Amino acid sequence: MTHRIWNLSAGPAILPESVLQEAQEALLSLGDTGVGICEHSHRGAAFVQVAEEAEALCRELAGIPDSYRVLFLQGGASMQFAMVPLNLLTPDATADYIVTGAWSKKAVSEARRCGQVHVASSGEESNFSRLPRTHSWSSHPRYVHFTSNNTIFGTQFASEPEGIPEDAFLVCDASSDIFSRPIDVSKYGLIYAGAQKNLGPSGVTLVIVRNDLVESGREDLPAILQYRTHAAAGSMYNTPPTFGIYLMMLVFRWIRDQGGLSGMEQRNRRKAARLYEAIDCSSLFQATAHPDCRSMMNVTFVTGDADRDEAFVAEATAAGFNAIRGHRSVGGMRASLYNAFPSEGVDALIEFMEDFERRQ
Amino acid sequence: MTHRIWNLSAGPAILPESVLQEAQEALLSLGDTGVGICEHSHRGAAFVQVAEEAEALCRELAGIPDSYRVLFLQGGASMQFAMVPLNLLTPDATADYIVTGAWSKKAVSEARRCGQVHVASSGEESNFSRLPRTHSWSSHPRYVHFTSNNTIFGTQFASEPEGIPEDAFLVCDASSDIFSRPIDVSKYGLIYAGAQKNLGPSGVTLVIVRNDLVESGREDLPAILQYRTHAAAGSMYNTPPTFGIYLMMLVFRWIRDQGGLSGMEQRNRRKAARLYEAIDCSSLFQATAHPDCRSMMNVTFVTGDADRDEAFVAEATAAGFNAIRGHRSVGGMRASLYNAFPSEGVDALIEFMEDFERRQ
Repeated sequence: MTHRIWNLSAGPAILPESVLQEAQEALLSLGDTGVGICEHSHRGAAFVQVAEEAEALCRELAGIPDSYRVLFLQGGASMQFAMVPLNLLTPDATADYIVTGAWSKKAVSEARRCGQVHVASSGEESNFSRLPRTHSWSSHPRYVHFTSNNTIFGTQFASEPEGIPEDAFLVCDASSDIFSRPIDVSKYGLIYAGAQKNLGPSGVTLVIVRNDLVESGREDLPAILQYRTHAAAGSMYNTPPTFGIYLMMLVFRWIRDQGGLSGMEQRNRRKAARLYEAIDCSSLFQATAHPDCRSMMNVTFVTGDADRDEAFVAEATAAGFNAIRGHRSVGGMRASLYNAFPSEGVDALIEFMEDFERRQ
Repeated sequence: MTHRIWNLSAGPAILPESVLQEAQEALLSLGDTGVGICEHSHRGAAFVQVAEEAEALCRELAGIPDSYRVLFLQGGASMQFAMVPLNLLTPDATADYIVTGAWSKKAVSEARRCGQVHVASSGEESNFSRLPRTHSWSSHPRYVHFTSNNTIFGTQFASEPEGIPEDAFLVCDASSDIFSRPIDVSKYGLIYAGAQKNLGPSGVTLVIVRNDLVESGREDLPAILQYRTHAAAGSMYNTPPTFGIYLMMLVFRWIRDQGGLSGMEQRNRRKAARLYEAIDCSSLFQATAHPDCRSMMNVTFVTGDADRDEAFVAEATAAGFNAIRGHRSVGGMRASLYNAFPSEGVDALIEFMEDFERRQ
C-alpha cells in the first residue's frame, strides 16, 4: 500500500485513487492489448476507442447539445486566452471581460493583443475578495468573458453573470471548477478548462464550443490555432496528449459513478460548507473571500498575522497536508477541495486547525 | 507479469519497460512524497526537482552549450511549424525549406502563412524515396529548415544538409530521430521534437534554441507563442505537462545508463542493419527508401503486391507485432525501431518475415 497524504494543491491537483490505480495497469498494457497507454498510436483502434469514450462521457455528464463540439487540445487556459480572441474577435468588434483576479487579467492582456477589449467590471477595488455584481457593457460586445472560479482569491460565481447583452455570446474560463456542479452549456458560446484541477493531469485542455463559432472563426491564422482545424480532425490534427485524454476518460467514468455532476455538487457543497463553518466559528482563522462569493473549490483563509500563517503552513505541511500555502501573490492559506478531494480530508484538516488554534 | 507485445508503432511509440515500471509507482506517490506525479503542483519542490533534472540530463546527453535554452513546451511539431516562422521569420526575409515528405510539406505550408518561403530542394520526384543532395538556396535566407528523419517514407539524413548559406541558421524538426545518435547542437539555431517517439509520451515538445534567437524574436505575438516567454519563465509560463516532463526525465536517465547518445547510435545501427539485411536478402520483401537514405528509425518495406502486404500485416498483427502497417498515405509495412525497441524484437520480426516468405 502506497502511503498517500492529504493533497490540497490548487493544481495540478488530487485525482481519484481508483483512477490512478487503473492508470498504473494501463501504463504497461491498456486492457489486454500488450501495449501501454502512452505507447499506442493515436490513430490505432485502442486509443480511438479511449478518445471516443472520453467525448461521449463528457457529453453525457454535461448534457452537451449536438450543436457544440467537444475538443481536447493542448496549452491550457493560457493558450485559450489567445485562441479565443484570435478566432472570435473580429477587428471591428469589442469583447467585454469581467475581471475577477489574476487569471482574468491575463485573459484581458492576451485579448488586447488581438483586438479591442472593454473591461465591463472588476473586483479590483475589493482586492478581488468580491465578485462584481453590476457590469457596464460596451455597446455591442462580440462576447462576454468571465472566469467562473478564482483559485487565488477563493471566489466563485454562483451562476452565470446576469444581463449579458443580446447578440453577445458568453465565454467562460472554467479551468478550476469545471464539472464540480451541473452546467447549462446552452448558455455559453465557448467554455474552456485546463484539465489539471477537476479532470485529469496538466497538458490537456477541454474546449466546448458552439458549431457556428467554429465555422465563423478567422481563417488566416496558423492552422493549429484555428478551432476549425481541430474540429474537422476530431482533435487529431496533430498527435493529441494521449495519456491525458485517457486519464480524463477515467475521471469522467468516476464522476458518472459518483452520481454525475449533481453528485459532485452535493459532495463539494458539503465539503466546502464544513470547512467554511469551522473557519467562521474559529476566533483565529478568517476566510478572505466575501461570504456571497466564496468558492467551493478553493477555500482561502488567514490568521491575520503573517508569522502565524507561516507557522500554520509549516506545521500543517509536516502533519501531512500538502500544498496548503496560499498563492505566492497573496500569502495566507488555501485548501483546494476539488472533486477528488475526500470529505475525510476535510475532517482531518478541521481537526488539525482546531488543534493548532488551541495551542496558540 | 503484464504480457507485452512487440510494438512497432511510429508514434506514440514504445517506451523502456523499466521507465514505465517506475512511472507506475510514481502515479500514486512520487518518491516518498505521498502525492502522485500528476498531482504535484508544478511550482512545488518535488516537481521543480524533476524539471531541473530533466533539463540537466538533456544538456548532459546532447552536450548542449550554455548559449542555448532548453524548453519543454506543448503542441508537438505542429505547433513548432507555426512558432518557428512566427518568431523568427521577419516580414522582409525568406526562409528556405528542404522538402523530404509530408511533415516538411506541412512545415512549409504553415511557414507560408507567416512569411516568404523558398523550397530549396525536394525529394518529391522520387516520391520521397531519396533525400535531395543539392539545394538551390534563396539569396539571403534567414534560416534553413529540414526534417532529419521521415517516418512515412523511411528516410533519414546521415548528417546535416551541406552548404548552408553563411548567415543563415539551421532549424531542424528532429521529432522522429532526436537522441537516437549524437548531435552537434552548435550547428543549429533551433531544434524541435515532439517527445512521442524517442523521448516520452505525446503532449510534450522539446525545443533547443540559441539565446540570441530567443531574444531577437518578434514581440507582437500572443505571449504563449513567443519563445522568450517560455525562456524567461523556465518553461513554467503556464502549467507544463508535468507527467510528460517526468517521463522524459526517466527516459533521459535510461539513455544515460545505456551509454548515452553513442550507446543509442550503436544499438540503433545494429538493429536497423539487421532488418535491412534481412529485407535485402529476401526475394519477397523490398525496402522502399533508397539505400543511401535509409532511416535507422523507420524501416519501410513492401512485397510489391498490395494484397500480399495486407496478408502480411494481418498475420504479423495476429502474431503480436503491433502497428506494423505503413502510414495510411503510402501503404505497405513499417517497422519503427526507436531507441526503446529491443533487439530481440528485431530478431523476432526477421524470423516471422522469413517464415511468412517460406509459406508463400
